[in-house]
Amino acid sequence: MTLDTILGQLLPQIEADLKDVLRIPHPELAAYYGMMHYHLGWVDESLQPAAAQGGKRLRPALCLLACRAAGGDPHWALPAGTAVELVHCFSLVHDDIEDHSSQRRGRPAMWSVWGVPQALNAGDGLFVLARLSLHRLDDRGVPAARRQAATVALDQACLALCEGQFFDMSFESSLDVDLDQYLWMIRHKTATLLATSAQLGALVASDDAGLIRGFFRFGENLGMAFQIQDDILGTWGDEHVTGKSVATDIRDRKKTLPVVYALHEANDEEAARELAALYARPERLDRAASQSALSLLDRVGARRYAEDTAAEYYRLALASLDETGIDNQAAADLRELAARLLKRKQ
Amino acid sequence: MTLDTILGQLLPQIEADLKDVLRIPHPELAAYYGMMHYHLGWVDESLQPAAAQGGKRLRPALCLLACRAAGGDPHWALPAGTAVELVHCFSLVHDDIEDHSSQRRGRPAMWSVWGVPQALNAGDGLFVLARLSLHRLDDRGVPAARRQAATVALDQACLALCEGQFFDMSFESSLDVDLDQYLWMIRHKTATLLATSAQLGALVASDDAGLIRGFFRFGENLGMAFQIQDDILGTWGDEHVTGKSVATDIRDRKKTLPVVYALHEANDEEAARELAALYARPERLDRAASQSALSLLDRVGARRYAEDTAAEYYRLALASLDETGIDNQAAADLRELAARLLKRKQ
Repeated sequence: MTLDTILGQLLPQIEADLKDVLRIPHPELAAYYGMMHYHLGWVDESLQPAAAQGGKRLRPALCLLACRAAGGDPHWALPAGTAVELVHCFSLVHDDIEDHSSQRRGRPAMWSVWGVPQALNAGDGLFVLARLSLHRLDDRGVPAARRQAATVALDQACLALCEGQFFDMSFESSLDVDLDQYLWMIRHKTATLLATSAQLGALVASDDAGLIRGFFRFGENLGMAFQIQDDILGTWGDEHVTGKSVATDIRDRKKTLPVVYALHEANDEEAARELAALYARPERLDRAASQSALSLLDRVGARRYAEDTAAEYYRLALASLDETGIDNQAAADLRELAARLLKRKQ
Repeated sequence: MTLDTILGQLLPQIEADLKDVLRIPHPELAAYYGMMHYHLGWVDESLQPAAAQGGKRLRPALCLLACRAAGGDPHWALPAGTAVELVHCFSLVHDDIEDHSSQRRGRPAMWSVWGVPQALNAGDGLFVLARLSLHRLDDRGVPAARRQAATVALDQACLALCEGQFFDMSFESSLDVDLDQYLWMIRHKTATLLATSAQLGALVASDDAGLIRGFFRFGENLGMAFQIQDDILGTWGDEHVTGKSVATDIRDRKKTLPVVYALHEANDEEAARELAALYARPERLDRAASQSALSLLDRVGARRYAEDTAAEYYRLALASLDETGIDNQAAADLRELAARLLKRKQ
């Protein structure tokens, strides 16, 4: 069975489970849950049915495939898959408010439709519903000790996410972000939730601590590679990826890996000074300034460095999976999912 | 032992436990946890030690006394007491953003010191830490089934809180709030967390479902009475309570019980029409308009109605406690705590 076939089976189950957890419990709350449905891509701004892009469901897919790879029935892991997707949704809804991003997947962000107060509170709701989803592992016959471990793991991932977001926001007003701090930040903000997605899948199916840790590391390294690739796309773009115009991260003066490398690691003091001067400007960079910044990045080899770093994390991800000793079809599916995500040939 | 003696023992333990859960895990996160410490009243805006009013710790006190009343050692319930206090803190931090309230307990609200993005994310952190606190019931030897029940109960309380807040914010732009909707809103937004505080204390100590439900109902009815009393104080003030000036809720056109009564229940159509006209104004009420609104409330007997309703919920709270059949010192302490909270003689 190819990856597409198995995703073709699993993704509709994930969507149905998300709809089950987010069902409107009381007619007076239709507008509250409606905001969440909008974020998931199921309805439009008038809460009428729509089929908008509501996310790729990467995290639940990781979770369910990891469950199968670890010897379980993916159906057991659905409450966990839904939980990690809802945590992801909560973080996007709050991030959009925090970053003042008015667009999300080609549509107005939740806060720009319903205002900050209602969107903030709907994000809180998604956060709680993620936990309530996880409690349903009980109905799938998952033993109490595994359920407890899953709950702790999800909460730890949520704390990492918040701490990473704190760091990311603090970075915005500082040029002194070194490589270690950058890596710490993306590990917390992005990689830990992917790590936990794979970990929860394995945890539902197995008590083998080494194996569960292997899946965590697979997801974590994949997450690191994924975020660095996102940095590269946000800087130089990719003609194959629609919806992301070139250099938006540069225009917004984001502290991406290429920039952190140029400022602190490339041993080209002049380039670092010039880039720092551009980044110290009080507002967004215009076209000419963005072009100057890109030239500086190219001069110090920042793209090559970021690509090599992403490749190294990708290699580590596959090695983490190998170390579990699992070599079944679901493990092959996970490898293919990773390769697709990072647009690499296996 | 009097209530003061027992609170004198428990409150410092609660404070120490809160500090333990909110300890800074990494020097680079000092400013993140610092915002939380500020909200708790431990530091000032420069994150220097302070002894500000950071809350009465009513919810953990309820939790620990309920645990003792149900036959447990209050020490077992500390992780739950800290959890309910942190949920309360999270909700205040987010509510202040949502309501654009710049003051909290006589100091600038978190968002007005550090901005909305950082405060929103610090609120999320408090929310996660509440959950992580609860997992520590494990260390106290609380059996797995009780821990699981506690986690589900806390999450359900959080969902009620978010749903209540949605309703409250939706109410602001509507005059069609009837009595049932008002009661539903305060039950979700305020009463459920007090109910859950008492419930968790009992749940840690006992497997008796009827007894646990009794403590839940005690807290819930107490919470209803508490919120209605808050409405009365926000409307007519209380010379014994500092920091709350008369009629702030009227000035802000809040849908309090006296107002809901006057609009929908009092059978005085003229008064209802006049009050609705005042409340339909586009901005805050000035002194004269507030005075007119107060006169209308007095005319229809709204104060008496609200006081009677609060008294009824207080009576129900005590009856719920009586129904548990528990008649020990801790139950007497809970009765005294309730009486004090509502400024009633036992």
